[in-house]
Amino acid sequence: MNNIKNIMLTLEFDGTRYSGWQEQDNAVTVCRTVTDALEKITGKSVSLIGCSRTDAGVHALNYVCNFMSDTSIPPRKVCFALNTELPGDIVCKFSDESPEGFHARFSAVSKRYIYLIQNTRFGSAIYRNLYYHFPDRLDAGLMRQATGYMVGEHDFRAFMASGSRIADTVRTIYSLDVTEHEDIVEINISGDGFLYNMVRIIAGTLIDVGIKKIVPEGIKDIILSLDRKNAGRTVPAHGLYLAEVRYD
Amino acid sequence: MNNIKNIMLTLEFDGTRYSGWQEQDNAVTVCRTVTDALEKITGKSVSLIGCSRTDAGVHALNYVCNFMSDTSIPPRKVCFALNTELPGDIVCKFSDESPEGFHARFSAVSKRYIYLIQNTRFGSAIYRNLYYHFPDRLDAGLMRQATGYMVGEHDFRAFMASGSRIADTVRTIYSLDVTEHEDIVEINISGDGFLYNMVRIIAGTLIDVGIKKIVPEGIKDIILSLDRKNAGRTVPAHGLYLAEVRYD
Repeated sequence: MNNIKNIMLTLEFDGTRYSGWQEQDNAVTVCRTVTDALEKITGKSVSLIGCSRTDAGVHALNYVCNFMSDTSIPPRKVCFALNTELPGDIVCKFSDESPEGFHARFSAVSKRYIYLIQNTRFGSAIYRNLYYHFPDRLDAGLMRQATGYMVGEHDFRAFMASGSRIADTVRTIYSLDVTEHEDIVEINISGDGFLYNMVRIIAGTLIDVGIKKIVPEGIKDIILSLDRKNAGRTVPAHGLYLAEVRYD
Repeated sequence: MNNIKNIMLTLEFDGTRYSGWQEQDNAVTVCRTVTDALEKITGKSVSLIGCSRTDAGVHALNYVCNFMSDTSIPPRKVCFALNTELPGDIVCKFSDESPEGFHARFSAVSKRYIYLIQNTRFGSAIYRNLYYHFPDRLDAGLMRQATGYMVGEHDFRAFMASGSRIADTVRTIYSLDVTEHEDIVEINISGDGFLYNMVRIIAGTLIDVGIKKIVPEGIKDIILSLDRKNAGRTVPAHGLYLAEVRYD
């Protein structure tokens, strides 16, 4: 039993054809696909722990997960073996042994997400699954102003999908930036954790600021209202990327 | 008959699931797909002229085509109507009436292509159909040196797919640049016309320069040899983009 190692993986995946990360009956999930590949290369049953649930269609640049295994494959070589068994839309970029108590979800101290909006008249054919196409002109300057009211520790109940049953809805946003690169508006957000659909509702609310439906200072009242109805739309999953997970 | 207009379209397409532009039996082509959509919106048979053949898997940022029609849809509105009938991987970005003699292929005076290489250990999951993944470290400085021997008017027979039966293999490359953006090496090439597979063989030859298999000055002899065997590999279609077509 002392040969059992705690192995962590960093994955990039295109979420387009997956029903998200987490295991579900009758659905193709990233977790199931990676688990199948790990079981193939290790020859044993694997229980894979992911850093986060992700919705159907959401992408990841650096998704962290871990599993216990007595495999003879050196931990740093697991990524090479794994990539031979994974489909092209999931790539293991890095693997290593992690400290004994490491848990991809519970050990995480912060996460960073990116939301990409293509702000052009017509959407892109090439990037159709990678950007959310929004045709009305966005004022990124106003969106940047609005972010100032969101950063910090707040009760983000108004930015949680209605129907969620989480008691503690206080979260801390460490940073929230809106940048423009040609026709792309990029929202970059990091925090200690996010409520269900919180990033997509924040992005949708910033879009409402960008089209002047909400004034930047209005964010303050939306947060205080604790009412989902006052925040903006939940924008689609395919513009969302889990970009980074940090551990101590 | 005097209501017949010559209408030109600019298309963006993701070539992943198409057998190229040109009509073929039993194959899904971009030309067939766009023609079907045009026939649906105009209610009449359409004969669509493309600016260029493209291979299976090749993408286009600005593909130009034209057709004659007596449709009542104003030429500048054709793109809006057309996008309602096109699949998501083809988008019409622009449409307008063009001069009577305009022919998307014969009127073209130059074309510009982009070839994108992802120079990392593992390929990207998200961009797997949009970049050619090449794991060995490329020296872009050497590649840039090599481009100097390619620019200008030359007989490019050594850079044409073997088996092609074109008599006149003299072409002029107007510009050829190699740039790096993080892990991406971008080859940008414009010329008066390109032989079959010429851009992909030039990109493959520049890769051989980048890994020091060919010295930059070696390009001179490869061109003079007129022998396909002396040039580099034909790199895959999915890294190639038709970026621009120019008309007088």
